[in-house]
Amino acid sequence: MSARRAAAPGPGGGTVGPAAVEGGRGLGLDVGPEPELGGSTQTSHRLLAYSDALLSIIATVMILPVAHTRIHPDQKLGESVQQLLLAKIAVYLMTFLIVTVAWAAHVRLFQVIELIDDVLALLNLACMMIITFLPYTFSLMASFPDVPFGIFLFSICAVVIGLIQAVIVAYGFYHPHLLNQQIQVSENQNFYKHHILKIILRGPVLCFLAAIFSFFFIPLSYVLLGLVIVFPHLTRFITWCKTKIVGQRDEEEHGSLETFTFYLSEPLSKERVEAFSDGVYAIVATLLILDICEDNVPDPREVEEKFHGSLLEALSEYRPNYLAYFGSFVTIGLLWFVHHSLFLYVTKATRLMGLLNILSLAFIGGLPLAYQLTSEFAEKSHNEIEAIQVSCVITFFASIFQFAIWTTALLHERETLHPFARYGGKEHAFMFAKLALYPCVSLGAFFLTCLLSEFSTEIFHLMQIVIPFAFLALRIFVRISLTVIKSVMSLSRRKVVLLEEEEACLSPSETLS
Amino acid sequence: MSARRAAAPGPGGGTVGPAAVEGGRGLGLDVGPEPELGGSTQTSHRLLAYSDALLSIIATVMILPVAHTRIHPDQKLGESVQQLLLAKIAVYLMTFLIVTVAWAAHVRLFQVIELIDDVLALLNLACMMIITFLPYTFSLMASFPDVPFGIFLFSICAVVIGLIQAVIVAYGFYHPHLLNQQIQVSENQNFYKHHILKIILRGPVLCFLAAIFSFFFIPLSYVLLGLVIVFPHLTRFITWCKTKIVGQRDEEEHGSLETFTFYLSEPLSKERVEAFSDGVYAIVATLLILDICEDNVPDPREVEEKFHGSLLEALSEYRPNYLAYFGSFVTIGLLWFVHHSLFLYVTKATRLMGLLNILSLAFIGGLPLAYQLTSEFAEKSHNEIEAIQVSCVITFFASIFQFAIWTTALLHERETLHPFARYGGKEHAFMFAKLALYPCVSLGAFFLTCLLSEFSTEIFHLMQIVIPFAFLALRIFVRISLTVIKSVMSLSRRKVVLLEEEEACLSPSETLS
Repeated sequence: MSARRAAAPGPGGGTVGPAAVEGGRGLGLDVGPEPELGGSTQTSHRLLAYSDALLSIIATVMILPVAHTRIHPDQKLGESVQQLLLAKIAVYLMTFLIVTVAWAAHVRLFQVIELIDDVLALLNLACMMIITFLPYTFSLMASFPDVPFGIFLFSICAVVIGLIQAVIVAYGFYHPHLLNQQIQVSENQNFYKHHILKIILRGPVLCFLAAIFSFFFIPLSYVLLGLVIVFPHLTRFITWCKTKIVGQRDEEEHGSLETFTFYLSEPLSKERVEAFSDGVYAIVATLLILDICEDNVPDPREVEEKFHGSLLEALSEYRPNYLAYFGSFVTIGLLWFVHHSLFLYVTKATRLMGLLNILSLAFIGGLPLAYQLTSEFAEKSHNEIEAIQVSCVITFFASIFQFAIWTTALLHERETLHPFARYGGKEHAFMFAKLALYPCVSLGAFFLTCLLSEFSTEIFHLMQIVIPFAFLALRIFVRISLTVIKSVMSLSRRKVVLLEEEEACLSPSETLS
Repeated sequence: MSARRAAAPGPGGGTVGPAAVEGGRGLGLDVGPEPELGGSTQTSHRLLAYSDALLSIIATVMILPVAHTRIHPDQKLGESVQQLLLAKIAVYLMTFLIVTVAWAAHVRLFQVIELIDDVLALLNLACMMIITFLPYTFSLMASFPDVPFGIFLFSICAVVIGLIQAVIVAYGFYHPHLLNQQIQVSENQNFYKHHILKIILRGPVLCFLAAIFSFFFIPLSYVLLGLVIVFPHLTRFITWCKTKIVGQRDEEEHGSLETFTFYLSEPLSKERVEAFSDGVYAIVATLLILDICEDNVPDPREVEEKFHGSLLEALSEYRPNYLAYFGSFVTIGLLWFVHHSLFLYVTKATRLMGLLNILSLAFIGGLPLAYQLTSEFAEKSHNEIEAIQVSCVITFFASIFQFAIWTTALLHERETLHPFARYGGKEHAFMFAKLALYPCVSLGAFFLTCLLSEFSTEIFHLMQIVIPFAFLALRIFVRISLTVIKSVMSLSRRKVVLLEEEEACLSPSETLS
């Protein structure tokens, strides 16, 4: 996809929209004699970047209410608190998963429609507005699981989103110069239209059913809702099973259609996967400072009374929070760094890789909760260990799914990876080390908490801060060992060369004699 | 800049890093015989996108504590509340301005260093970590204006940021294949090195002085701190005045140096201006739903007791909040849309345009506050009108600065604008209408609040929601009037043609006769 996009008239990073339009016109496309004076066509690059930012933030930001649920250190986790926390976590997870489904549909939609105009931009914004409203419907659902209104409201929103996207498709196919070039020149545009409509309306139809059933039998509505999330993966899995059992018949059928079908069944453009991931990492990293600013600025009156006006003394009470802040930031930053390093060598993101990436991001979104727990329960023996363990588990899953992306990519390395990162590639060993670091460290920390009773949040955060130096040490270690190997190799080779030269020197004399 | 970036080996949206590196090698650059096995060079595109996201979110997110300051509707704004609010607004503004200064320095730095490797990525992340910590130092400053510790901590952070960036520069010039191509082939690399170091270290040196003075005379520290923010614009203004008074001598001097100097004095790459703006718009749009989710989910027990278990009845109490949400979202979305339309036709962002853009964004960041005010003071006569007025003022300034960007661009339209948006261009009139809409509407609403005592938040939010249809109506109106004009023109032209043909028919007969 990325190569295609780069090859298109000019939707690359910095090119100016109208120039691209002129390029399109230069290509002799049928734009009509007077191609829309007011609503000139534009590249969709920036609209997509903005949508990605909105969607990634909305997917992640619902962790804030979870993280902000106050639990007193001496309070046994009462049932009511536990229930509240569970409801909020459910809201976070539902939002995250539904938003990623909506995002995947959005990616596919704008793979078909490559240029936009003002009307499409406004329609897309309307769509975004309703998607950002979804977390509220989940909050209602979580607070009132037995009342049909929450799920009804959600379903209505989903149906409206589906309708808006259907209007976008209809508008796009009515103005064919907005479409992907391959579809533009294709003869069976109708096939593509139905294909993309099917993808987009699948979810809303299920939601519509859920809305109807919500008045009769709520559990069925929830099942339908869950189906919306797993449906794309489920169908994929079923076709995969089918091809395994029945054989390659399915593929032959596809072969008779144009190549673009395959392209549509690989819905994840690498560029947009990166943009979405960046949004999640960025919002998670910056949410931390909000907590610090709200909780850790002492009250001036208290400073006067309790600490005799010494601000430094008052602030020294917050030392664990600072440590937690820097530790968490370093963790998020490095996980982004690993992700960045990995995707530098990924040439194409398959569906499974996209799914693993989303799972990884869901745990990344949980990191503010880990920060909140470890900074709140610092130095309170029992809860402290548990807080560290939760942090370790979250970090472990976030990083192991990153590792899984690479492993999956290696299975089809010819299609998905740059030669450097394949087996035996230049960067293979180093990539392995990078990706394995966090799973190992978090597992290690988890077991340490079980063994050592002395383990504290302080040590944990210091560990987090030290890890980047481990990265650099790793690099230096790899380099030194490589140069040692190389020099040994060259030394032995020189010996071989010398020997050969000696032989060569000898041989002429031999031939002479 | 954007064109340059697009022309570079391959830092465009979707290209894979290592391919670009190979491209760089293919160009015969001096990368050494064995170019760093482990730490291969990468394009900086994604690192910059991530940095932009981080910086824009951190710049904007400090509005949350302002918006969340609870003021009871019947409470007269007491002095303590007022002071608290002012302190928080000061923190927001300081953060916003300082982050934009840091962002501008960052843009310049990575115009010089165009490729990165792992070490640079990690250094950049460290830099980001300290920048995201800055809001906390501002919180301390705002709460304890008389204690030197806050300003001292801030200055130390700024100095550390400066040092890290200096290390990045040193590293970049030590590995020249990472540099901008023009600098790579240039003979006086040292000049560029000093130039970029001067730009980067200007702020930190002032901060260092501020740190020293904070122990003797705090007001001077604050003056120095303010100087950091205005310094880049001040020097620009002084040189501008100088050239106006003394004449063009200054420019001649620049002419003797290479063309890249001019390039360095235009620090705003359009691509990054867009990315930063998108981040601000996206976070502002999504912060709204957080408030809705936290405040407007009724308590199950309350619903049982007060509304006899009817969720719908309980929710109907929040109607003004929903209206406020959708109204605010539409406003933010459309302001983004206007910004997007404008920058589609901007080919280069000058410094003044960048400054105006940042001022516009600062007011955009204030929109969550407007939302909070109008949704909280709905239907409470006196404060209600004031809340609407504050919203109007914020919207007015956000949109008038957008308008100013275009006006400034028109002054140098040959350099900064696409032909379509220049005087007499195809999109000129429509662009004007788009940009003028929000200033007019917000001014109109402001005056309505003064005249009509009946004006309520409900009407205000309905107005906000209706505006996109005004956009569409505008487009239809422009189209219809244009087609009318065209048909009239073609009719009159046809008459002329007919007359000419008649003359042509007559003339041969005349010549014959």
